[in-house]
Formats: sequence, C-alpha cells, structure tokens
Amino acid sequence: MGLRSVLIVGTGLIGTSIALALRERGLEVLLADRDPAVARLAAERGAGRAVEPSGAERADLAVLAVPPGAVPAALRDVQKLGAARYCTDAASVKAAPIAEAAALGCDMTAFVGGHPLGGRERSGPLAARPGLFAGRRWVLCPTPESAPAAVEAAEALALACGAVPVVMSGHEHDRAVALTSHTPHLVASALAARFAEAPEPVMALAGQGARDVTRIAAGAPELWSSIVWSNAGPIAEALDQVAGDLRRTARALRGTGPGEPVHDLLVRGVEGYARIPGGERTGRRGSVPVLVPDRPGELALLLHAVCVTGIGVEAVAFAPGRPVGMVELTVEQGSAGHLAGELRARGWAVPVGEA
Amino acid sequence: MGLRSVLIVGTGLIGTSIALALRERGLEVLLADRDPAVARLAAERGAGRAVEPSGAERADLAVLAVPPGAVPAALRDVQKLGAARYCTDAASVKAAPIAEAAALGCDMTAFVGGHPLGGRERSGPLAARPGLFAGRRWVLCPTPESAPAAVEAAEALALACGAVPVVMSGHEHDRAVALTSHTPHLVASALAARFAEAPEPVMALAGQGARDVTRIAAGAPELWSSIVWSNAGPIAEALDQVAGDLRRTARALRGTGPGEPVHDLLVRGVEGYARIPGGERTGRRGSVPVLVPDRPGELALLLHAVCVTGIGVEAVAFAPGRPVGMVELTVEQGSAGHLAGELRARGWAVPVGEA
Repeated sequence: MGLRSVLIVGTGLIGTSIALALRERGLEVLLADRDPAVARLAAERGAGRAVEPSGAERADLAVLAVPPGAVPAALRDVQKLGAARYCTDAASVKAAPIAEAAALGCDMTAFVGGHPLGGRERSGPLAARPGLFAGRRWVLCPTPESAPAAVEAAEALALACGAVPVVMSGHEHDRAVALTSHTPHLVASALAARFAEAPEPVMALAGQGARDVTRIAAGAPELWSSIVWSNAGPIAEALDQVAGDLRRTARALRGTGPGEPVHDLLVRGVEGYARIPGGERTGRRGSVPVLVPDRPGELALLLHAVCVTGIGVEAVAFAPGRPVGMVELTVEQGSAGHLAGELRARGWAVPVGEA
Repeated sequence: MGLRSVLIVGTGLIGTSIALALRERGLEVLLADRDPAVARLAAERGAGRAVEPSGAERADLAVLAVPPGAVPAALRDVQKLGAARYCTDAASVKAAPIAEAAALGCDMTAFVGGHPLGGRERSGPLAARPGLFAGRRWVLCPTPESAPAAVEAAEALALACGAVPVVMSGHEHDRAVALTSHTPHLVASALAARFAEAPEPVMALAGQGARDVTRIAAGAPELWSSIVWSNAGPIAEALDQVAGDLRRTARALRGTGPGEPVHDLLVRGVEGYARIPGGERTGRRGSVPVLVPDRPGELALLLHAVCVTGIGVEAVAFAPGRPVGMVELTVEQGSAGHLAGELRARGWAVPVGEA
C-alpha cells in the first residue's frame, strides 16, 4: 500500500523524527500529543499539522510514539475514534503492550508492533531529526491476527524513514533488546551510581574509559523506568547473570572462591565485544595524532589544513576531557607519514612516531 | 634535577610511548625488555638504544614499564646492577608493589611509584606514540622514605611526557583507580560476556550503546588479569556494590523485592555520569547530519566540501555500524542552517530539520 497520511501520537524525539522523515517524502502528517503545546512545537519545526485526533480526518496509519506502558490505551483511543485505518507503535518493548492491548479489546487485526532502533541522549521534539533512523534496523512484530495490509503499512513507514525492516516475534524482540539495550543501560547505571558517591580527587582520575562505559546511563530516568518495567522478566534474568559473574569475580579476588573466574571473565568479555556488529573496518589504516588547543575554531583550522594537503581523511576522533585536545586523523597507512609532515610544516603539533 | 638519561625497562606500549616522548626532547634513552627482540623493535621506531642493563651505563632514572606483579623484582634487579640512580614505575597499581619491593629489601629511598593515566586498546611498541600522555594526569606516589631528588626525577619524567603530575598515597591511588578504571573494565567484561553467548539475530540488534559500554572489555586478558589481581581488595569491594545494585534491581523487576531500586538506580546513574570530568562544552552548538556512503574516501570528500564553505566545524562524529554512514558536524548554532544549505547545494544528503 502507498501511505499517504500518517497520524503521529506523541511528538517527542521519536514521533517528531518519524514525522520529519515522512514530511521529506511529501506525506501528509498529523501531529497529536497529550500536551497540545508539544504537538504545536513539532508543527513549528515543519513536522506536520497539529490536530485533535478524530474520525473526521482518518489517516492511513497511526504511529503511537508513546512510552511502552501507554501504548495499549493509545491504541484503544485511536481505534475508538476511528482516527486511523492501521496502527503501529515505536516503543522499545513489544510483548507486554501487545498482550495488554488484546486484553483491552483492541482490534488486533489492524495493529502491528514496531520498534525503530536508534535514538539520542536528548529528548523532545527539538532534538528530533529526519535522519534519526536512516540506515538503522526497524523491528516489526506482527501477531498471527495482524492483517497483511497492516504489516505492509508498518513496513512502508520504516522504509519511508530510510530504515531496514526486520520481522520477529514480540517475545524474541524483547529478549534481544533486554540483552543489547536495557541490561547495558542498567549495568551502566549501576557503575555510574558508584561515581555519584566518590570523592572529588577520585573522580579527577576518571577518563575516557569510565565515560564510555557509563555514557548511556545519562538517559532520562522516567522514560527508562517505563521501558525497563515493561520488559522486566528478560532484563531481570540478564541482570542476575551479570551480577553472578561480578560476585564470583569479587569472591575470587578476595580469595574466598576459586581464582579462575577472573581470567575467564576477561576472556569472555573480549569474545563478546567482538560479536557486536559494525565498528570494524577492513584495510590497513594509519593514524596521525595532532595536539589542538581545546577551544572553538581550532578544529576548523586543522580540517582546513588537512583539506589543503589533498590527503583523504577517513575518520576524525577526539580525546575530550584533556587539558590539551588530541585529534586523531585516520588515513590510509601509506599516507600517514606524508600527512604528519605536511601538518608539521604548517605549524601543527604532530608528535613523532605516529603509528 | 635535569634528567639526561633514562633507562626504560619493558618496551611495550607504555614504555615505548614514554621513550618516544623523551627522545623528542633530546634525552638519552636506553631500552631493555625481557624479550630483546621487542626492545630492538622499539629502537627501530626511534625510541632509543636497545641495551642489556648494567652498572657500566648508569641512567639518571629507570622507568619500570612492566605489569604490576613484575615491578618489585624489576626494581631489585635494576638496583642490584646499579643501572640507574633513581627508579619509578608506570604500573596501574601502587600499594602492593611498593610493599613487596620493600619486603624484597629494595632501596626505597631511591624509588617513587608512578602511574601515567592513558593508554589505548592496542598494545606493543608499534602502537606506541609520544603524545600518549600529553595533557593527561600522571600520579606519583612517594613513600615517607622516598628521597626528594627521587621525587623530582619522577616529576621531571612526567613533565617531559607532557603530563600533569598529581601526588597521592599508594592506597589513595589504588582505591581511586579501582573505582574509575579496574571496576569499569570488569563490569564491561561481565556485560560483554553475555554477548559472547547470544544468538546471531539478537546481536544484530546491538548498536552504538552496547558498543560503548563494552569497548574497554576488548583489552588484553593477560595484562588485565595482572592488573586486577594486584589491586584485588578495592576492586572486590566495588564489584560487590555494583552486583548488589544489580541484584536489588533484578528482585524489584521480578516483584520479589520493593520496586523503588529501579528508578533510584537510574537517577543515581545520571548523577554519577555527570561527575566524570571533561566531555562537556560551553556555548550553544548546532549540528548538521549528513548521510555518507560508508566507504573509504567519502569522508575526505565531505570534509573538502565543508572546507570550501569556510564554516568552522568544531566536531565530526560518526555513527558507525549502520548500512548508511551518518556523519554529524557540530558548528556554532548560527551556522548550522547555512552549512546544511551549502552542503545540500553541493549534492550531499543532509536531512531537513537539523537541530
């Protein structure tokens, strides 16, 4: 089916990002939020037209971009009003909302659960962007009741946002995201919680490693609370396994248990990290470190200098949090020495011995 | 004191990086490793001269860049040979090696423990670079026995590497790094260990968040095993606290304990993350997302296009692991729209509505 009009229910980061992507493709987008001011804000960003949902303006598809716990009631309300022909959602938990919606008496033939992977630390319509889901996976969880046309509508939505649709059951989805998203969040929170109590001189020694491990713990507690409670079972199981490994390791380190778990855990960690898709590149690369004063404008000057050399840079990485900024330029291995020389000749601080 | 000659014992990543920094400042550097081929490799990189340590060539300072457990014996050996006037080390654990060296009968007046913060995932002399410690903290742990001239020598070493010396006791240091470095590593390992066992379709949903939380778990198990065992007590305590939080959270999610710990943990996580120094910037910034084919050379073309606009870019971020690459350019807020327009006019895919 060709989607023509889409009703977005909930114009936060996710809903507004979907709306912006649909507007880029010329679709009609209706925007609704329990706080009408938020829907107007999204409309002002060009995401569509703020409306009070009703059967008078029936959309082809409604996207319930609300927290997982709010999906069943939102589905019932949209169906009661007749505000959309088919419905999907964007919540990061699937099995419980689907079961609850069925229990509320919703028409499950017209519903297909969806979960676009992606997101940002920031929230709200102002943080939204049309490319948020471009190239990302978008999980669809049809039930045996879901009508083929409803599945097609949800799939068309994912494709219109530039995402890659993936079909699995709600239970499969929930176990997968418990492991790859929700458990990592809580583990990061449990570690960061230790930093909350540490004295200042201790925290002064924390660097990029500590920052990376805990970055996702900065997410909004209210939203994450809702997500975590909606997927409680699979998360609790994974948390207990992680806690069990940590306790065995602590016992080994105290000498009150066998010593093997320490080395074993480190080895399994290396294996597990290697299984995360992406991030790796093929071909031999060299990198050129450059010391840059950590103030606005300096990177622009550096990138200009790189540009003038004509050498192709494939990645630009920062080591933030240092008194002196360090930028690492990744290039083809054969070009590293050349680039280092060119930058030095232009007065940039490039330590010798770049790898 | 002015350092003139430094003996590096252990020419891995850390030792060779220190050596390269010292060579940049024109100091004489002697290189020793239990594997002479590794010392020669470092010498070939321009890090100094490979030697068999002896009293015939007495250095001003020896840097024991060996794993924590190997520091006491290395100190004893260097002092027995008379190969250096003063000694320091670069191990990431301080109290146990200091106590053990004293027990071995080492001359503790001539020793000051040191720990340069920093490092990389890669190891070995080929991964070394002179700027590895530039702008980073370098902890010095003198004991009451340490001679002032020994402390000055260790401080001169840190400064010659461009680092910022910080003085604290060995026990203070060990508790601090247990919390900010060793515990994060094991927590990341415990999470990544779960990924090692997960089915393929589950891991396909893992993204940047999962990658960030577990990145440090990729470190070499042998080295980390040595580090962790040398600082066992403080780490075991922190691991138990993290495991306790995870277990309480799991009980809450199962409904077999009070529910508050879930929200409480998320809130404490946000607070703790905010206490990590660095990473934040002042001033209002805008960002421009650009879709880029994920293949070599494309980023170079984009950076060239940015360069031609004359707009100063302050950060370049990637979202790796997507089928379509997404580059986020950070600029002054007022320039975001202009840059987006300029890039679009040059044919780049810049989604509308950039925030």
